[in-house]
Amino acid sequence: MLKKREIQVFVVILCQLRYIRRIAFAGGNEALFFKVKTTEEVLELVQGFQPVGEEIVPLDRAYGRVLSREIVSLEDLPGFPRTSVDGYAIKAKDSFGATESLPALLEIVGEVGMGQTPSITLGPGQAVKISTGGMVPKGADGVVMVEYCHLLDQTTLEVSRAISPQENVIQPDDDFKQGAGVLQKGWRLRSQDVGVLAGLGVTDVHVYKKPRVAVISTGDEVIPVQGKPRPGQVRDINTYTLSAFCTQQGAEPVALGLCKDDFESLRNMVHQGLETADTVWISGGSSVGTRDLTLKVFESIQDTELLVHGISISPGKPTIIARRGTTAIFGLPGHTASAMVVAEVFLTPFLKSIGGETVISGKGQNKVPARLSRNIESASGRDDFIRVRLIRKQGEWIAEPIFGKSGLISTLVEADGLLRIDRNTEGLYQGQQVEVMRFKQA
Amino acid sequence: MLKKREIQVFVVILCQLRYIRRIAFAGGNEALFFKVKTTEEVLELVQGFQPVGEEIVPLDRAYGRVLSREIVSLEDLPGFPRTSVDGYAIKAKDSFGATESLPALLEIVGEVGMGQTPSITLGPGQAVKISTGGMVPKGADGVVMVEYCHLLDQTTLEVSRAISPQENVIQPDDDFKQGAGVLQKGWRLRSQDVGVLAGLGVTDVHVYKKPRVAVISTGDEVIPVQGKPRPGQVRDINTYTLSAFCTQQGAEPVALGLCKDDFESLRNMVHQGLETADTVWISGGSSVGTRDLTLKVFESIQDTELLVHGISISPGKPTIIARRGTTAIFGLPGHTASAMVVAEVFLTPFLKSIGGETVISGKGQNKVPARLSRNIESASGRDDFIRVRLIRKQGEWIAEPIFGKSGLISTLVEADGLLRIDRNTEGLYQGQQVEVMRFKQA
Repeated sequence: MLKKREIQVFVVILCQLRYIRRIAFAGGNEALFFKVKTTEEVLELVQGFQPVGEEIVPLDRAYGRVLSREIVSLEDLPGFPRTSVDGYAIKAKDSFGATESLPALLEIVGEVGMGQTPSITLGPGQAVKISTGGMVPKGADGVVMVEYCHLLDQTTLEVSRAISPQENVIQPDDDFKQGAGVLQKGWRLRSQDVGVLAGLGVTDVHVYKKPRVAVISTGDEVIPVQGKPRPGQVRDINTYTLSAFCTQQGAEPVALGLCKDDFESLRNMVHQGLETADTVWISGGSSVGTRDLTLKVFESIQDTELLVHGISISPGKPTIIARRGTTAIFGLPGHTASAMVVAEVFLTPFLKSIGGETVISGKGQNKVPARLSRNIESASGRDDFIRVRLIRKQGEWIAEPIFGKSGLISTLVEADGLLRIDRNTEGLYQGQQVEVMRFKQA
Repeated sequence: MLKKREIQVFVVILCQLRYIRRIAFAGGNEALFFKVKTTEEVLELVQGFQPVGEEIVPLDRAYGRVLSREIVSLEDLPGFPRTSVDGYAIKAKDSFGATESLPALLEIVGEVGMGQTPSITLGPGQAVKISTGGMVPKGADGVVMVEYCHLLDQTTLEVSRAISPQENVIQPDDDFKQGAGVLQKGWRLRSQDVGVLAGLGVTDVHVYKKPRVAVISTGDEVIPVQGKPRPGQVRDINTYTLSAFCTQQGAEPVALGLCKDDFESLRNMVHQGLETADTVWISGGSSVGTRDLTLKVFESIQDTELLVHGISISPGKPTIIARRGTTAIFGLPGHTASAMVVAEVFLTPFLKSIGGETVISGKGQNKVPARLSRNIESASGRDDFIRVRLIRKQGEWIAEPIFGKSGLISTLVEADGLLRIDRNTEGLYQGQQVEVMRFKQA
């Protein structure tokens, strides 16, 4: 009979053999050697994907789209000398020295109609009536506001204040000079940007295509949202959450629906996703078994390279990312809260990348400086993303952590954003200044 | 011959007679007595308008919409005891005292399938294999993570760590209790909120209708965006800017197009707007003449009450607001930059009101604390809204004012937001802490 020590050695050898066999079976696939990646490593990977394409949209549908070409002004804007006030166009020097007690007297020789090119050329001592937005006639180099004008009779104007040359006149190229860069490639259009395009006569706009995202929800326990779950079953939350997230980010969700935890079904659905969309997102059960299934499916698809097998974050660690050609395939955690952390942290920059939005600079729309309401401990070696509530107190934001069991969605609904605790930190202190990633609201 | 003094008196009397005649003509209309209103007065007025109506949308189109009814959970969620880890369901007390050197030994009596209601009732000393999201069987009151489990043989489990009762188990009503309020009426749905509705089986969502906004652009100098302006003409910027602004705010623009500075045309178009939309926005030329025309049109429409005739702000002073029944009609300045200041400051809360979005609380999505880069002077007696650029420096935002002639649109494109200088302030100092209203980006 073998002694205890000998049994232990035997078991160890057996395990190693099994390990080697698995590697052999995986056919040189390196999944088994994959180390969990850091937040920064994964961010760099997902931001390496290229924009999905370009299209032309009419100007009235361009709001919120991302420019795929720089906008250069093809003309001077406004293109003519324009008054910014109601009043009289004059030669500025004719008003020099004018005061209320010693007004300048000028001869009114006409009026500029809105939208008209004035035919008059102003001579010395002359004035022309003009309304805001009107074209300043030749010979005039300034407009005196109506408040400082007084009509002595139909043709005699008293000006009670001196103006300097070019006062109240917008020059032909004050807004944009012909050939000047107006908006950068990679910029997402706001309402005023759409307005500028209108001003420049850009009726058709070159934009990046909206990324199409195939969304698959897996799990034998998941039923359609219309159904009444039996004990043990839950409704399909992830399809709706992830689809809404896509819409929020300016992408187009293609909800492929539910998939059972079954190799062939999932494989077929992923193939369907690859054919119809620019990226495929599978939210799996969070169990080891489901993760293994997703991994197997990824490995079974030809020309697929595994990029990420686990991220050193919490929640969201069991995330898998693969690449097939130019397409990224994501295996997300099944817990909605975990999937949403991965979405906020990684899928937001990923969608920006494949949506061509490069000019995000340092504006950090969603970063809010806040003060922490209490101490938070954190395990080192991973980045923790804590859900927080934002409360306004005495002119500053207080970030209040929301604790709760993992797997709850209510905590996500109560939260206003996420707080990152870096893996090299053991925790944060009450009163400490932090930066909250605020959830976007439509 | 009359003496100078007598002429003056005569003129004053004449003027007064003319004034009285105008009042008589206006038929008791109080427009002439209107004082310019303050920012707060106008905010209160525009926020007095009621939501435009309710409709039902399918869940997959509910993102970004505003709830018109409170969401109450009709059931417990998740509705059954659910494990949040992979492992074995046990009676917690069977693990008490267990350590790596002195593990507890348990008998494995089965496995819970995902989505299944387990038929087993756990007895003392027994364990059941379970995956994340699985239903915890009767008799079990905790789940020990797979990491602390070791199989001695097919039916014998070694547990190397004690768990406490309810450890790793989500209770049937942990997310939401039946009858609990989940989301408030007046809340705009984010992606996670849509997910919660899915979890609760809410397939059709009661939301407020999107406000429909009739947008009219007036001015004899304004031409369609497709055209090539002659000197003196400009393209129709405002239709596009204001329509995009509506889209941004979750409203539906109805662009009625261009209108000449002509009473009958404008009157007809405003009537058309009143018939097809929930509010009518006219952006007029900024000249006195155009403003008077807009005012005349407002006064000519039956049952219309003038609410605001001028606001003590800059830019944006020449703003007119009228009410006809429950509908607000706005006469906005013609300069795009001025119109957009009015839109940011007043039309945003107005659209929230008629869109039913009441739960905006103190989250102030768009308020950014920043430090001012330089001194700014300001005329007292009016609120100044200064366009600013936001620059990130050493962990804080610097607000850099953008100066430029009024009537330019380029300054609006360069800006990231607006800075308000209160009318009781004579200016702000370099280095002062301010709050910037950041422009929204899709």
